[in-house]
Amino acid sequence: MAIKLYDLCSADKNSRFSPACWRTRMALAHKGLEVETVPTLFSEIRSIEGGGQTTVPVIADGDTVMRESFDIAVFLERAYPELPSLFRGEGGIRTSQFMHWWTNATVDSQIARFCILDIYNGLDEKDKSYFRQSRETRFKRPLEQVQDRSEEAVVRFRESLLPLRLTISKQDFIGGDVPIYADYCIFGSFQWGRMVSDFAFLETDDPVAKWFERCLDLFDGLGRNAKV
Amino acid sequence: MAIKLYDLCSADKNSRFSPACWRTRMALAHKGLEVETVPTLFSEIRSIEGGGQTTVPVIADGDTVMRESFDIAVFLERAYPELPSLFRGEGGIRTSQFMHWWTNATVDSQIARFCILDIYNGLDEKDKSYFRQSRETRFKRPLEQVQDRSEEAVVRFRESLLPLRLTISKQDFIGGDVPIYADYCIFGSFQWGRMVSDFAFLETDDPVAKWFERCLDLFDGLGRNAKV
Repeated sequence: MAIKLYDLCSADKNSRFSPACWRTRMALAHKGLEVETVPTLFSEIRSIEGGGQTTVPVIADGDTVMRESFDIAVFLERAYPELPSLFRGEGGIRTSQFMHWWTNATVDSQIARFCILDIYNGLDEKDKSYFRQSRETRFKRPLEQVQDRSEEAVVRFRESLLPLRLTISKQDFIGGDVPIYADYCIFGSFQWGRMVSDFAFLETDDPVAKWFERCLDLFDGLGRNAKV
Repeated sequence: MAIKLYDLCSADKNSRFSPACWRTRMALAHKGLEVETVPTLFSEIRSIEGGGQTTVPVIADGDTVMRESFDIAVFLERAYPELPSLFRGEGGIRTSQFMHWWTNATVDSQIARFCILDIYNGLDEKDKSYFRQSRETRFKRPLEQVQDRSEEAVVRFRESLLPLRLTISKQDFIGGDVPIYADYCIFGSFQWGRMVSDFAFLETDDPVAKWFERCLDLFDGLGRNAKV
């Protein structure tokens, strides 16, 4: 039976843009598990699987309901140890937890500032007031003032990617020859930006951009084919 | 036979302050390997083990000479698989490489700016001109203008530690209940600051400061006892 993935969508139900949901989508593909994605609006999250959820991704694997992208990845690793490993050992889980926080604190926070109006404009009408209110509370200013594509912001973003750039400059993936969960974790953030916006965060000759292109090609172009 | 560790020292040969050497020192202790440290001035690095070295740490394990802290840790893991694991699996090695670069790019670069004059003042007279020249080339200004302990710089430093803070707020070490190489990698940077300076980078109630205190206690206080 396919694993259900409640997957955030915009007004176009085929546009799945959540960075956290992309982490889970890629993790499921890495494991080769069959998935049924359920397009989910922000305003529908509270009614998922009988209620009680506040964020996506949420997966339902038979009777097991799990949330939080990192916890889902660890669940999949332990529930399906015979399928290709996401973490390649317990140490990989521990250090990937750090990389999860690095991605949130460093990558997501900056991409949000580049794209927040694009995200807002793409949302279903039912989600717009929730999104505006929650994000304006978080950033303490109107969405129109959150978005910042100044050269200074772009340069700072590119500089902050140095640890990733140094890691993947001489190898295809963070995992070496093959991707691991840490790749999907960071990929999710760039795919988020790609799904909602045409803004160019990266220079095309940046090793990070080339790594992202390799990730887009994985699993028969799962990431690349999501946007036409 | 003990493994030789060529360990950077200041004018006081007992003061070992290199962040990279501390990574190796802790990795050797984690493996429970016997070590003989060789105090080494900057100006002595080129004559280590017959010449050809440009940086420390360098280790000599019998006939095998290795350099670069990360490569040394991987070497120790593979050469002594029966001793306590530094990485807990291949995935841990891959993601720890990212954390090595994060530590260099984020932690070391900022601690250098807090402490560079303290480092300089503690050096042996034979090392001072090399240090001044190489660091002034790197930072493109006099040492006296590199050092920056402004409140803005301190706040930015503390904020940049968020991924580490989130990781160790609910567990003792990045490795969970037990430390792994990723802990030693970042520990080395804070120990560097502690060895050369009394400047308080961290607030004492910061979870990062508490994690650092736990690291200082490891291996019968190996880190703590290095400074009296």
